[in-house]
Amino acid sequence: MGLSGETRIHLIVGDPIAQVKSPAGLTRVFAERGADAICIPMQVPPRDFDAFMSAAKRVLNIDGIVITVPHKLAAVRHCDTLSERARILGAVNVMRREGDGRWFGDMVDGVALVAALHASGFDPMDRRALVVGAGGAGSAVALALMEAGARLSVCDVDTGRRDELVKRLAPLGQVAAGSSDPSGFDLVVNATPMGMTPADPLPVDATRLASKALVADFVTKPAVTPLLEAARRRGSPIVTGEAIFRGDILADFFLRVPERSEP
Amino acid sequence: MGLSGETRIHLIVGDPIAQVKSPAGLTRVFAERGADAICIPMQVPPRDFDAFMSAAKRVLNIDGIVITVPHKLAAVRHCDTLSERARILGAVNVMRREGDGRWFGDMVDGVALVAALHASGFDPMDRRALVVGAGGAGSAVALALMEAGARLSVCDVDTGRRDELVKRLAPLGQVAAGSSDPSGFDLVVNATPMGMTPADPLPVDATRLASKALVADFVTKPAVTPLLEAARRRGSPIVTGEAIFRGDILADFFLRVPERSEP
Repeated sequence: MGLSGETRIHLIVGDPIAQVKSPAGLTRVFAERGADAICIPMQVPPRDFDAFMSAAKRVLNIDGIVITVPHKLAAVRHCDTLSERARILGAVNVMRREGDGRWFGDMVDGVALVAALHASGFDPMDRRALVVGAGGAGSAVALALMEAGARLSVCDVDTGRRDELVKRLAPLGQVAAGSSDPSGFDLVVNATPMGMTPADPLPVDATRLASKALVADFVTKPAVTPLLEAARRRGSPIVTGEAIFRGDILADFFLRVPERSEP
Repeated sequence: MGLSGETRIHLIVGDPIAQVKSPAGLTRVFAERGADAICIPMQVPPRDFDAFMSAAKRVLNIDGIVITVPHKLAAVRHCDTLSERARILGAVNVMRREGDGRWFGDMVDGVALVAALHASGFDPMDRRALVVGAGGAGSAVALALMEAGARLSVCDVDTGRRDELVKRLAPLGQVAAGSSDPSGFDLVVNATPMGMTPADPLPVDATRLASKALVADFVTKPAVTPLLEAARRRGSPIVTGEAIFRGDILADFFLRVPERSEP
């Protein structure tokens, strides 16, 4: 990595920040693609987020910003323009400065999951999928899985938030309110922070996982969460947060590579 | 370099920024010393400087900030405490967050030059030195050279600024107002941006350099400035901006290594 005064800067903004994989992963993909660019972690608490974003967007060598927990909803108000899915979801996880100086926001968490599923040989078309978590990442995953043809259920400990998401997505495809019982699902996705700390309960009742259900987890640290560990013990295939956040999807966004159509 | 979410962040803030060497140099020294830390360039125009600094100082994984042209004077107001020399000079080029959360500012440009001089075998004690430029870097160099025992002259196209600096330093040692005529000086230091662009005039009349006068230049890009090239053609030893900004002095500050006493 040839860091210099000319290197173009991308930030990943969240709180906490130590667990994020993009500084290594996205920076590696930039290098693989010949871009003199880097992704730098910034730990910004919610109370400082707005002032930080206003200042960061004016730094002349910052080209892009990755947004992570807990800022994906708040970041929307810092975008001048939004992708269609970001508008539907009311959340962004990536922002870039366009040629005209305006900041464009998109939400690619869902695309990243679907790409990781395809990479592991799983096609969501017509499969029953349970998404745990109706926040920024969960909403994006739900939308992307619906677009990929899955029959979707969403659960969240906050049932109001769950029902709100189901209502918002209902016009777009097949989606239902679900519970933390994963029985009968071909795919279970944890899009909550549960599993980051050892004391966390499992996001679903792992004893009721369907045989061979694929389990994916957005948590990146530990790489194999207790949920993934339980799934693996039952013989299920797993997709880790590291696999989801490999950096390619983010690099596509920042380097303006048109989105690949799925196989 | 093992960039991750746990890497501690240091910024170098200036405008322009492409020419700075600290992202590579300081980051390399951090790695050599086993610190998981990095230095990132931030191009911040003067109109945005205050808002940027207020936000950056609140980012929890930013430990330090290097200040470069044109912000060295403005940065003083963003420090909670100052070193004695920063207070005298009214300028800082390094800031770090202390254990109590307050930001401490220092001005180590002068120390960096004196260290580079010693490294090249030149002891300023009792030598006649001409410092070109009475701004942030020039002031720091003047003070450090006086402390190292040099007999000092300062020049600046802005003679008011030159005379103000001479007046401020006079109580501390031997210092006089000088011109861009370098004849008779054992050491000539360019502490202005002159030489960054090809159209710049030379900061001193190189045809009048004393034989064997050492010439040092704070400009880092080009590495060998027209002034240094002219000096080299006359057989003079030179010290480049890269040699001054090797990163060791900055790393000492951020890693809290006590300043070395000179040989």
